[in-house]
Amino acid sequence: MSEDTRATVEELYDAYERRDGDRIAALVHDDIDWVIYAPVSVFPFVGPRQGRAAVLQALGAIAEEYTLQSYKREIMIVDGDRAAVMSDVNFTQRATGRTLRFRVANFLRIQDGRVIEFREFVNSFDVVEQALGRELRL
Amino acid sequence: MSEDTRATVEELYDAYERRDGDRIAALVHDDIDWVIYAPVSVFPFVGPRQGRAAVLQALGAIAEEYTLQSYKREIMIVDGDRAAVMSDVNFTQRATGRTLRFRVANFLRIQDGRVIEFREFVNSFDVVEQALGRELRL
Repeated sequence: MSEDTRATVEELYDAYERRDGDRIAALVHDDIDWVIYAPVSVFPFVGPRQGRAAVLQALGAIAEEYTLQSYKREIMIVDGDRAAVMSDVNFTQRATGRTLRFRVANFLRIQDGRVIEFREFVNSFDVVEQALGRELRL
Repeated sequence: MSEDTRATVEELYDAYERRDGDRIAALVHDDIDWVIYAPVSVFPFVGPRQGRAAVLQALGAIAEEYTLQSYKREIMIVDGDRAAVMSDVNFTQRATGRTLRFRVANFLRIQDGRVIEFREFVNSFDVVEQALGRELRL
Protein backbone atom coordinates (compact mmCIF):
# COMPACT_ATOMS: atom_id res chain seq x y z
CA MET A 1 0.00 0.00 0.00
CA SER A 2 2.85 2.41 0.77
CA GLU A 3 4.09 2.17 -2.81
CA ASP A 4 0.64 3.05 -4.21
CA THR A 5 0.47 5.97 -1.76
CA ARG A 6 3.92 7.17 -2.79
CA ALA A 7 3.01 7.02 -6.48
CA THR A 8 -0.20 9.00 -5.96
CA VAL A 9 1.50 11.63 -3.81
CA GLU A 10 4.36 12.05 -6.28
CA GLU A 11 1.90 12.38 -9.14
CA LEU A 12 -0.05 15.02 -7.20
CA TYR A 13 3.01 17.17 -6.50
CA ASP A 14 4.31 16.71 -10.05
CA ALA A 15 0.92 17.90 -11.36
CA TYR A 16 0.97 20.90 -9.00
CA GLU A 17 4.49 21.84 -10.07
CA ARG A 18 3.53 21.87 -13.74
CA ARG A 19 0.18 23.54 -12.99
CA ASP A 20 -1.79 20.68 -14.48
CA GLY A 21 -5.24 21.56 -13.15
CA ASP A 22 -7.02 18.63 -14.78
CA ARG A 23 -4.62 16.10 -13.30
CA ILE A 24 -4.82 17.74 -9.85
CA ALA A 25 -8.63 17.65 -10.00
CA ALA A 26 -8.51 13.94 -10.89
CA LEU A 27 -6.34 13.22 -7.82
CA VAL A 28 -8.63 15.01 -5.33
CA HIS A 29 -11.24 12.73 -3.73
CA ASP A 30 -14.89 13.84 -3.89
CA ASP A 31 -15.04 13.67 -0.08
CA ILE A 32 -11.74 15.38 0.70
CA ASP A 33 -11.30 16.90 4.16
CA TRP A 34 -8.80 19.79 3.77
CA VAL A 35 -7.27 22.40 6.09
CA ILE A 36 -4.55 25.02 5.53
CA TYR A 37 -3.61 26.41 8.96
CA ALA A 38 -3.10 30.14 8.38
CA PRO A 39 -5.07 33.39 8.95
CA VAL A 40 -8.10 33.83 6.69
CA SER A 41 -7.89 37.58 7.32
CA VAL A 42 -4.76 37.71 5.14
CA PHE A 43 -5.24 34.65 2.91
CA PRO A 44 -8.93 34.17 2.07
CA PHE A 45 -8.23 30.78 0.49
CA VAL A 46 -6.96 29.10 3.70
CA GLY A 47 -8.81 27.33 6.50
CA PRO A 48 -11.01 24.25 6.25
CA ARG A 49 -12.62 23.04 3.00
CA GLN A 50 -14.93 20.06 2.55
CA GLY A 51 -15.26 18.26 -0.76
CA ARG A 52 -13.51 18.48 -4.09
CA ALA A 53 -15.34 21.54 -5.48
CA ALA A 54 -14.42 23.66 -2.45
CA VAL A 55 -10.79 22.52 -2.60
CA LEU A 56 -10.43 23.23 -6.32
CA GLN A 57 -11.97 26.66 -5.71
CA ALA A 58 -9.36 27.34 -2.99
CA LEU A 59 -6.54 26.23 -5.31
CA GLY A 60 -7.93 28.50 -8.01
CA ALA A 61 -8.01 31.43 -5.58
CA ILE A 62 -4.36 30.82 -4.64
CA ALA A 63 -3.41 30.81 -8.33
CA GLU A 64 -5.27 34.07 -8.91
CA GLU A 65 -3.16 35.89 -6.31
CA TYR A 66 0.13 33.98 -6.49
CA THR A 67 2.27 32.50 -9.26
CA LEU A 68 4.15 29.37 -8.31
CA GLN A 69 7.87 29.83 -9.01
CA SER A 70 9.24 26.65 -7.51
CA TYR A 71 8.14 23.79 -5.28
CA LYS A 72 11.05 21.65 -4.05
CA ARG A 73 10.13 18.54 -2.08
CA GLU A 74 12.81 18.15 0.60
CA ILE A 75 11.36 15.25 2.61
CA MET A 76 8.71 12.69 1.70
CA ILE A 77 7.62 10.12 4.26
CA VAL A 78 5.15 7.39 3.31
CA ASP A 79 3.48 4.89 5.65
CA GLY A 80 0.48 2.82 4.52
CA ASP A 81 -2.22 5.18 3.26
CA ARG A 82 -0.57 8.28 4.74
CA ALA A 83 2.24 10.58 3.66
CA ALA A 84 3.98 13.69 4.96
CA VAL A 85 5.87 16.07 2.70
CA MET A 86 8.11 18.99 3.61
CA SER A 87 8.87 21.42 0.79
CA ASP A 88 10.71 24.65 0.08
CA VAL A 89 8.41 26.85 -2.02
CA ASN A 90 8.56 30.14 -3.88
CA PHE A 91 5.58 32.17 -5.02
CA THR A 92 5.29 35.59 -6.64
CA GLN A 93 2.47 37.84 -5.42
CA ARG A 94 0.87 38.96 -8.67
CA ALA A 95 -0.37 42.34 -7.41
CA THR A 96 3.04 43.50 -6.19
CA GLY A 97 5.67 41.25 -7.77
CA ARG A 98 6.86 40.36 -4.25
CA THR A 99 8.54 36.97 -3.83
CA LEU A 100 7.40 34.82 -0.92
CA ARG A 101 9.65 31.97 0.10
CA PHE A 102 8.81 29.56 2.89
CA ARG A 103 8.69 25.93 3.93
CA VAL A 104 5.47 23.94 3.81
CA ALA A 105 4.57 20.80 5.81
CA ASN A 106 1.77 18.62 4.43
CA PHE A 107 0.05 15.58 5.87
CA LEU A 108 -1.98 13.54 3.37
CA ARG A 109 -4.13 10.43 3.39
CA ILE A 110 -4.91 8.53 0.18
CA GLN A 111 -8.05 6.54 -0.54
CA ASP A 112 -9.05 5.01 -3.90
CA GLY A 113 -5.92 6.53 -5.46
CA ARG A 114 -6.95 10.08 -4.47
CA VAL A 115 -6.24 12.51 -1.65
CA ILE A 116 -9.03 12.33 0.91
CA GLU A 117 -7.34 14.14 3.80
CA PHE A 118 -4.96 17.09 3.61
CA ARG A 119 -3.40 19.30 6.29
CA GLU A 120 -0.96 22.13 5.56
CA PHE A 121 1.29 23.93 8.04
CA VAL A 122 3.51 26.94 7.41
CA ASN A 123 5.22 29.47 9.65
CA SER A 124 2.20 31.68 9.03
CA PHE A 125 3.49 34.67 11.02
CA ASP A 126 6.48 34.85 8.66
CA VAL A 127 4.39 34.23 5.54
CA VAL A 128 1.98 37.03 6.51
CA GLU A 129 4.93 39.43 6.92
CA GLN A 130 6.24 38.42 3.50
CA ALA A 131 2.78 38.87 1.93
CA LEU A 132 2.30 42.32 3.51
CA GLY A 133 5.89 43.34 2.75
CA ARG A 134 6.47 44.59 6.30
CA GLU A 135 6.90 43.43 9.86
CA LEU A 136 3.82 42.93 12.03
CA ARG A 137 3.49 45.24 15.03
CA LEU A 138 3.38 43.30 18.28
CA MET B 1 14.45 0.12 10.35
CA SER B 2 10.98 1.69 10.40
CA GLU B 3 10.07 -0.27 13.54
CA ASP B 4 13.19 0.96 15.37
CA THR B 5 12.34 4.50 14.26
CA ARG B 6 8.77 4.15 15.45
CA ALA B 7 9.90 2.85 18.86
CA THR B 8 12.36 5.74 19.34
CA VAL B 9 9.84 8.37 18.28
CA GLU B 10 7.14 6.92 20.54
CA GLU B 11 9.56 6.83 23.44
CA LEU B 12 10.53 10.47 22.82
CA TYR B 13 6.92 11.71 22.82
CA ASP B 14 6.05 9.56 25.84
CA ALA B 15 9.00 11.09 27.70
CA TYR B 16 7.94 14.60 26.70
CA GLU B 17 4.36 13.98 27.84
CA ARG B 18 5.50 12.87 31.28
CA ARG B 19 8.16 15.61 31.45
CA ASP B 20 10.98 13.10 31.80
CA GLY B 21 13.93 15.41 31.12
CA ASP B 22 16.59 12.73 31.61
CA ARG B 23 14.93 10.39 29.11
CA ILE B 24 14.45 13.21 26.59
CA ALA B 25 18.12 14.19 26.94
CA ALA B 26 19.13 10.57 26.29
CA LEU B 27 17.09 10.51 23.07
CA VAL B 28 18.59 13.69 21.59
CA HIS B 29 21.65 13.09 19.41
CA ASP B 30 24.81 15.07 20.21
CA ASP B 31 24.79 16.45 16.66
CA ILE B 32 21.10 17.27 16.38
CA ASP B 33 20.00 19.80 13.77
CA TRP B 34 16.81 21.45 15.12
CA VAL B 35 14.44 24.18 13.89
CA ILE B 36 11.11 25.47 15.24
CA TYR B 37 9.60 27.74 12.57
CA ALA B 38 8.06 30.62 14.53
CA PRO B 39 8.96 34.25 15.37
CA VAL B 40 11.85 34.66 17.81
CA SER B 41 10.50 38.12 18.67
CA VAL B 42 7.62 36.47 20.54
CA PHE B 43 9.10 33.07 21.43
CA PRO B 44 12.82 33.42 22.25
CA PHE B 45 13.25 29.64 22.35
CA VAL B 46 12.33 29.03 18.67
CA GLY B 47 14.44 29.11 15.51
CA PRO B 48 17.46 26.95 14.68
CA ARG B 49 19.56 25.12 17.29
CA GLN B 50 22.66 23.01 16.69
CA GLY B 51 23.70 20.25 19.08
CA ARG B 52 22.17 18.62 22.11
CA ALA B 53 23.10 21.30 24.68
CA ALA B 54 21.43 24.07 22.68
CA VAL B 55 18.28 21.95 22.15
CA LEU B 56 17.96 21.03 25.82
CA GLN B 57 18.39 24.71 26.69
CA ALA B 58 15.54 25.60 24.30
CA LEU B 59 13.31 22.90 25.82
CA GLY B 60 14.14 24.25 29.28
CA ALA B 61 13.22 27.77 28.18
CA ILE B 62 9.85 26.54 26.86
CA ALA B 63 9.16 24.80 30.19
CA GLU B 64 10.02 28.00 32.10
CA GLU B 65 7.32 29.96 30.28
CA TYR B 66 4.75 27.26 29.51
CA THR B 67 3.32 24.26 31.36
CA LEU B 68 2.36 21.33 29.15
CA GLN B 69 -1.27 20.37 29.74
CA SER B 70 -1.73 17.76 27.05
CA TYR B 71 0.01 16.47 23.95
CA LYS B 72 -2.19 14.24 21.82
CA ARG B 73 -0.54 12.54 18.85
CA GLU B 74 -3.12 12.45 16.08
CA ILE B 75 -1.04 11.12 13.18
CA MET B 76 2.30 9.31 13.18
CA ILE B 77 3.94 8.38 9.88
CA VAL B 78 7.17 6.35 9.86
CA ASP B 79 9.34 5.56 6.84
CA GLY B 80 12.88 4.19 7.27
CA ASP B 81 14.86 6.55 9.52
CA ARG B 82 12.28 9.35 9.23
CA ALA B 83 8.98 10.12 10.94
CA ALA B 84 6.33 12.84 10.86
CA VAL B 85 3.97 13.49 13.74
CA MET B 86 0.92 15.74 13.90
CA SER B 87 -0.36 16.54 17.40
CA ASP B 88 -3.02 18.55 19.20
CA VAL B 89 -1.33 20.33 22.11
CA ASN B 90 -2.33 22.43 25.11
CA PHE B 91 -0.01 24.64 27.13
CA THR B 92 -0.64 27.09 29.96
CA GLN B 93 1.32 30.34 29.89
CA ARG B 94 2.72 30.54 33.42
CA ALA B 95 2.83 34.34 33.66
CA THR B 96 -0.84 34.83 32.76
CA GLY B 97 -2.59 31.47 33.18
CA ARG B 98 -3.67 31.70 29.53
CA THR B 99 -4.32 28.42 27.72
CA LEU B 100 -2.78 28.02 24.28
CA ARG B 101 -4.15 25.26 22.08
CA PHE B 102 -2.81 24.49 18.64
CA ARG B 103 -1.69 21.76 16.27
CA VAL B 104 1.96 20.90 15.79
CA ALA B 105 3.62 19.21 12.81
CA ASN B 106 7.02 17.60 13.41
CA PHE B 107 9.47 16.00 11.00
CA LEU B 108 12.16 13.85 12.62
CA ARG B 109 15.13 11.76 11.52
CA ILE B 110 16.61 9.10 13.79
CA GLN B 111 20.23 7.98 13.89
CA ASP B 112 21.84 5.62 16.45
CA GLY B 113 18.49 5.44 18.27
CA ARG B 114 18.39 9.21 18.80
CA VAL B 115 16.83 12.23 17.11
CA ILE B 116 19.40 13.89 14.84
CA GLU B 117 17.06 16.10 12.79
CA PHE B 118 13.94 17.90 13.97
CA ARG B 119 11.65 20.42 12.29
CA GLU B 120 8.53 21.89 13.88
CA PHE B 121 5.71 23.76 12.17
CA VAL B 122 2.74 25.51 13.78
CA ASN B 123 0.23 28.08 12.60
CA SER B 124 2.52 30.65 14.21
CA PHE B 125 0.27 33.66 13.47
CA ASP B 126 -2.49 32.03 15.52
CA VAL B 127 -0.13 30.89 18.28
CA VAL B 128 1.30 34.43 18.60
CA GLU B 129 -2.24 35.80 18.99
CA GLN B 130 -2.99 33.21 21.66
CA ALA B 131 0.27 34.00 23.50
CA LEU B 132 -0.38 37.76 23.41
CA GLY B 133 -4.05 37.31 24.30
CA ARG B 134 -5.19 39.61 21.49
CA GLU B 135 -5.49 39.85 17.71
CA LEU B 136 -2.55 41.15 15.72
CA ARG B 137 -3.08 44.43 13.90
CA LEU B 138 -2.61 44.04 10.16
